[in-house]
Amino acid sequence: MEDVFHYIEQNQAQYIRWLQEICRQPSVAAQNRGMDETAKMVLDAIHTIGGQAELIETSGYPVILGTFGKEGLKTLSFYNHYDVQPEDPVELWDYPPFGAEIHDGKMVARGVADNKGNLMARLAAIHAYQQVRGELPLSIKFIVEGEEEIGSVHLEEFIEKHGDRLHADGCLWEFGYKNANNRPQISLGVKGMCYVELVCRGANTDLHSSTAAIIENPAWRLVWALSTLKTPDEKVCIPGFYDNVLPPDHLEKQILDQMEYEEKETLQHLELESFLSELSGFDLKEKLIFQPTCTICGFESGYTGTGAKTVLPAEARVKLDFRLVPEQDPEEILTHLRTHLDQHGFEDIDIIPYSLEHPAKTSPSDPLVDTVRTTARQVYQTDPVVMPMSPGTGPMYSLCQKRGIPAVSVGVGHFASNNHAPNENIFVEDYVQGIKHIAAIIEDFAQREAKGANG
Amino acid sequence: MEDVFHYIEQNQAQYIRWLQEICRQPSVAAQNRGMDETAKMVLDAIHTIGGQAELIETSGYPVILGTFGKEGLKTLSFYNHYDVQPEDPVELWDYPPFGAEIHDGKMVARGVADNKGNLMARLAAIHAYQQVRGELPLSIKFIVEGEEEIGSVHLEEFIEKHGDRLHADGCLWEFGYKNANNRPQISLGVKGMCYVELVCRGANTDLHSSTAAIIENPAWRLVWALSTLKTPDEKVCIPGFYDNVLPPDHLEKQILDQMEYEEKETLQHLELESFLSELSGFDLKEKLIFQPTCTICGFESGYTGTGAKTVLPAEARVKLDFRLVPEQDPEEILTHLRTHLDQHGFEDIDIIPYSLEHPAKTSPSDPLVDTVRTTARQVYQTDPVVMPMSPGTGPMYSLCQKRGIPAVSVGVGHFASNNHAPNENIFVEDYVQGIKHIAAIIEDFAQREAKGANG
Repeated sequence: MEDVFHYIEQNQAQYIRWLQEICRQPSVAAQNRGMDETAKMVLDAIHTIGGQAELIETSGYPVILGTFGKEGLKTLSFYNHYDVQPEDPVELWDYPPFGAEIHDGKMVARGVADNKGNLMARLAAIHAYQQVRGELPLSIKFIVEGEEEIGSVHLEEFIEKHGDRLHADGCLWEFGYKNANNRPQISLGVKGMCYVELVCRGANTDLHSSTAAIIENPAWRLVWALSTLKTPDEKVCIPGFYDNVLPPDHLEKQILDQMEYEEKETLQHLELESFLSELSGFDLKEKLIFQPTCTICGFESGYTGTGAKTVLPAEARVKLDFRLVPEQDPEEILTHLRTHLDQHGFEDIDIIPYSLEHPAKTSPSDPLVDTVRTTARQVYQTDPVVMPMSPGTGPMYSLCQKRGIPAVSVGVGHFASNNHAPNENIFVEDYVQGIKHIAAIIEDFAQREAKGANG
Repeated sequence: MEDVFHYIEQNQAQYIRWLQEICRQPSVAAQNRGMDETAKMVLDAIHTIGGQAELIETSGYPVILGTFGKEGLKTLSFYNHYDVQPEDPVELWDYPPFGAEIHDGKMVARGVADNKGNLMARLAAIHAYQQVRGELPLSIKFIVEGEEEIGSVHLEEFIEKHGDRLHADGCLWEFGYKNANNRPQISLGVKGMCYVELVCRGANTDLHSSTAAIIENPAWRLVWALSTLKTPDEKVCIPGFYDNVLPPDHLEKQILDQMEYEEKETLQHLELESFLSELSGFDLKEKLIFQPTCTICGFESGYTGTGAKTVLPAEARVKLDFRLVPEQDPEEILTHLRTHLDQHGFEDIDIIPYSLEHPAKTSPSDPLVDTVRTTARQVYQTDPVVMPMSPGTGPMYSLCQKRGIPAVSVGVGHFASNNHAPNENIFVEDYVQGIKHIAAIIEDFAQREAKGANG
């Protein structure tokens, strides 16, 4: 692979420019900003490097389906997304969120780590491979959706209509990070998701807070409702919530045990004294990867501006995400939540579901896992850290697990990439290494088939 | 008084214009908007109608001290304020918050009820009285501060320096409302206040919510802390909170019993089915007037924009007001709150105090109360509703009670004036009646002295 790696190094300026261009185009699905423009950029990029690409409309934002290489060959698919999280709170960014400026070796932009860096690294890898070798040794399918950050709400609809076009022998999932010790991490699954907004309403208008003596306060009701959902010992109190939680099996426990997790560096980076419930070691890793969560992502009620305003709010809203582990079912969790609120006297609190996704994982003994590990050693000169499952979420169940396709996550981020947060960034050097890694995976995965066919 | 009343009617267009002019000038103390300009307008208005006025600087916004009439006469003081609440949420206003437009007989503006309508009605009454009678029968002192809506934070400083200039035989407090049956309401006291912001901090930045499995969430901690402060039965659980709460005495109970409170109309207006804890009748009125409160006025954490964002917030903030009743002490309540949070393991939650005010009340048998009631009957052709104490708050303790000055609240608002809320408004007709009432009070209170001196 040295020829391809050399080409990538020689042409890195161009690949960095590609990434800057797409990062400078906002694509905030939650706020419908720049979505069409960005979808068009992805389509054009695939065309430019010789692929076939189709922009497939859904009831939401379109999905781009791209293909490279001859039909009939072994097929590797890439799952990516062109949407990004909102950039708020924008005042906490050191550089413009859509400037894609490079400072201290890092490119800073909303979406640069999640997920445009990975998308462009994969396109760059195909480009470089083709430039050096002429032809790809396998067939590649790109599935690039525009709703990952809002829960892939219309991907199911897309899969139902176009499922026959999605077959692959393996899938590279969208993301991956170097840890604080500079070792690449790969992960073999994702948590599921049940993301909801709870809305509690009081009087038909905000009132002078002197009336709070006799008029119900929806902010208090929401606080009380929340306090029944999870207790300070971090136990979710919704009956049935833990029923289907599968503990790690023997092999997963082994992997977990070996899995490097940089506790000290993480705490230092976040300026924290300890992890939740003072966890460390195996217990910390098990909680991170194999335990579901219930998280307040946002809470708003009443006056939140400068200074004091004595107001009784008319409404209170909380955004909650539940990250789910195998075999929790997001629809069931939603039902359990409704029942729980009703049983605690909160029938009036509305639940608006935003995103429901199943958890998914790939067996550590799958050949795709070996391809990704072997090539990672080749590129990074170190054994990658294997996570049995990512604590993050994505539509891996629908796109892969349900269809028998193994999936592995690998990418160009690092442990302080600040995904979803201000100052999202990647190291430019990691981006270039990531391009090499994808090129090496393409070669290795194709050869494995040849080996299999011959052996 | 018919001569003065007639003059007021003939000149109402001018008095309405005065009010529109000052309402069109924003004066949001919490946001430092338009404060100097508004103070100047008040100063000029007093000068224009022949009073003496001084703008007295404090460490915060200036206080205007105005005087009318001869020294040595009996003195009536007027307490008012020129600051207003912020106009958020501005999108819920039907008309511009600083437009002072008149629609369906109502002037709509932030501050028109609280407190510019009352301020201008009092100035207009003095103007009319002087125009018709030439000279005032008593001396009048205006105390117009600029920080009432942020808790009169520097009024104490002003009182300490200028206390010798504040003596009066009675004080008309800033506000008053007609109830839903169109009967004027007067009140004889105010609740106290302890307004604080609680701040809970987690990691040094917002994080991807997948990390919530192992990183503390300040929004959850704040929810749990709040749930220890007040329970769904509306009991404040801070030890010592109720220690000094004085129940209504025999006379107050009688007044409370006779006090009209329009339950049905209030519920209809707010589109509510019932009051808090299903209260009604005497219990409802007692809770409104004689019980302290603990109110969430605002809660903010994490992402509160459109759609879903999976974020673990770095910070959570809540604004809380405690309305206090005699003999609760705001400083003591603040200490109790700190102790309570510490004892529940929330030492890390910061308390930022914004406003600390003592409750205050005037005896129902005070002669000033009789003046206000008698003149109300004269102007409104109906007996006013007497509230032993307003559920609202103001610096009545420092300005009046501590100095032995009786104080009665009377004003031009109505039960749906939406103070502190969108679409704040008063009826123009109530404004004109309010001007007459003040003129009548001036005459009656002066005569009472004469009677006293002769009798």
